[in-house]
Amino acid sequence: MRRWQFSKGHGTQNDFVVLLDRQNVLDPSVDDVRWLCDRRAGIGGDGLLRVVLARHVPEWEGDPDLWFMDYRNADGSFAQMCGNGVRVFVRYLLDEGLASGPEVDVATRAGLKPASVLPDGRVRVGMGPVSVQPGTVRVTTADGSAFDATPADVGNPHAVSFGTRLGDLDLTRAPVWRPSSTFPEGVNLEFVEPVGERHVAMRVFERGVGETRSCGTGTVAAAAASRAREGSGDGTWTVDVPGGRVEVELTGGEAFLTGPAVLVAHGEVTLPNV
Amino acid sequence: MRRWQFSKGHGTQNDFVVLLDRQNVLDPSVDDVRWLCDRRAGIGGDGLLRVVLARHVPEWEGDPDLWFMDYRNADGSFAQMCGNGVRVFVRYLLDEGLASGPEVDVATRAGLKPASVLPDGRVRVGMGPVSVQPGTVRVTTADGSAFDATPADVGNPHAVSFGTRLGDLDLTRAPVWRPSSTFPEGVNLEFVEPVGERHVAMRVFERGVGETRSCGTGTVAAAAASRAREGSGDGTWTVDVPGGRVEVELTGGEAFLTGPAVLVAHGEVTLPNV
Repeated sequence: MRRWQFSKGHGTQNDFVVLLDRQNVLDPSVDDVRWLCDRRAGIGGDGLLRVVLARHVPEWEGDPDLWFMDYRNADGSFAQMCGNGVRVFVRYLLDEGLASGPEVDVATRAGLKPASVLPDGRVRVGMGPVSVQPGTVRVTTADGSAFDATPADVGNPHAVSFGTRLGDLDLTRAPVWRPSSTFPEGVNLEFVEPVGERHVAMRVFERGVGETRSCGTGTVAAAAASRAREGSGDGTWTVDVPGGRVEVELTGGEAFLTGPAVLVAHGEVTLPNV
Repeated sequence: MRRWQFSKGHGTQNDFVVLLDRQNVLDPSVDDVRWLCDRRAGIGGDGLLRVVLARHVPEWEGDPDLWFMDYRNADGSFAQMCGNGVRVFVRYLLDEGLASGPEVDVATRAGLKPASVLPDGRVRVGMGPVSVQPGTVRVTTADGSAFDATPADVGNPHAVSFGTRLGDLDLTRAPVWRPSSTFPEGVNLEFVEPVGERHVAMRVFERGVGETRSCGTGTVAAAAASRAREGSGDGTWTVDVPGGRVEVELTGGEAFLTGPAVLVAHGEVTLPNV
């Protein structure tokens, strides 16, 4: 019988199971991750955040006193980074007294991510480089509506469509894009509706997942595509997603994502026998 | 800041947040229930089981020393009973030392429900009367497939269809039934495929919810309709649902439901400020 301490939290309703594993000894299997993220049989989450002291992570070559974020998708696969996940990770470190803030560097598979906690409790994370690519792809949704989309790279691939009313958008099934050769490994699709000056609303269809209530890199892609579309300079964009609101600062080729992070529960989980 | 102790558990993946409220003082609002059952912003569950000592429940007129199951749907509405919920409720009472078993009577809005814990850990619950009604309704699923369905009453309304391959069934959208006047307040729809002698597999579309991984009264309706269809006598039916396996005993007009119940986590939840 394995009993693990856990927390559950979310950033704009992108939600996570958090496991403290300071010494890197829990070794959750793919089945363990799937079960922990199973919303009915287990705890439930979009992913797992395992909190490991970086000195115990062989692949980490930086500062050994940082905390390493081992992020897993709900299907058990590894992921390099998760913008909403980093905020929840930092909130966890602070709530548990594992870091003091307001500046908290997080070790990830995508390198060191600088974060800071604002006086209002939100967390600001350096997301690294973002770039908008030339050309467009044609995105067609389930009901046959078609949009021109701007490709963007936030470390992972995105295509951002404008010109839709979000309330009319049919994301019950996966949209398709042409030419399909543009994103041979799939793409995250953002649909953006302007709300005001440097303020947009967005829905997102994540590759391999479906429509979600928030996608951190997706909000960065949406802001960068908006900047390119408007021909405007650096600045801060407000991005409303179904799960809440974030802000994206664009300074040159770099992006910073600021948003809420909340831990809602702490407890002990009993894993099923394998 | 309200902090409540909670547990999370499930019966054949019909899952619940459990709150111990011995003195009936927590008084969760509709918004509290919705938030607790919210799978991303809160804990997540199909419903809430509040555990209250019956003497503190004004509407209960029976034995004051029983435990009363205050069952709420995820949308915050009250429900009289929940077959899978009672099993999880009993498992909670035993795990927490609030009842000793193996016989545990549970007070519900639908009256006293007798339960017992089997040596293998499963819980058997008296579900009360079940009846199959004369006539048929015509059920049409999202892809246009149509089936004759047998109406059944398990305290709530059901219609049980045979003659489908479950793997081909399209439950992505709500099926419709004709004549629609038959169930003016809606109906739970079961789709049954025989597996062996007194053994069926079933999928279920619950009214107001959608397809679920299990429905306790639905498995009873499926067994009763199977008995009527086969013209067989009393006995025990095995019913496989997407979330697991249960057994339904039919003795005359009464039904007993036996299945697993498991608590996976315990902890403390911090409710948002209202």
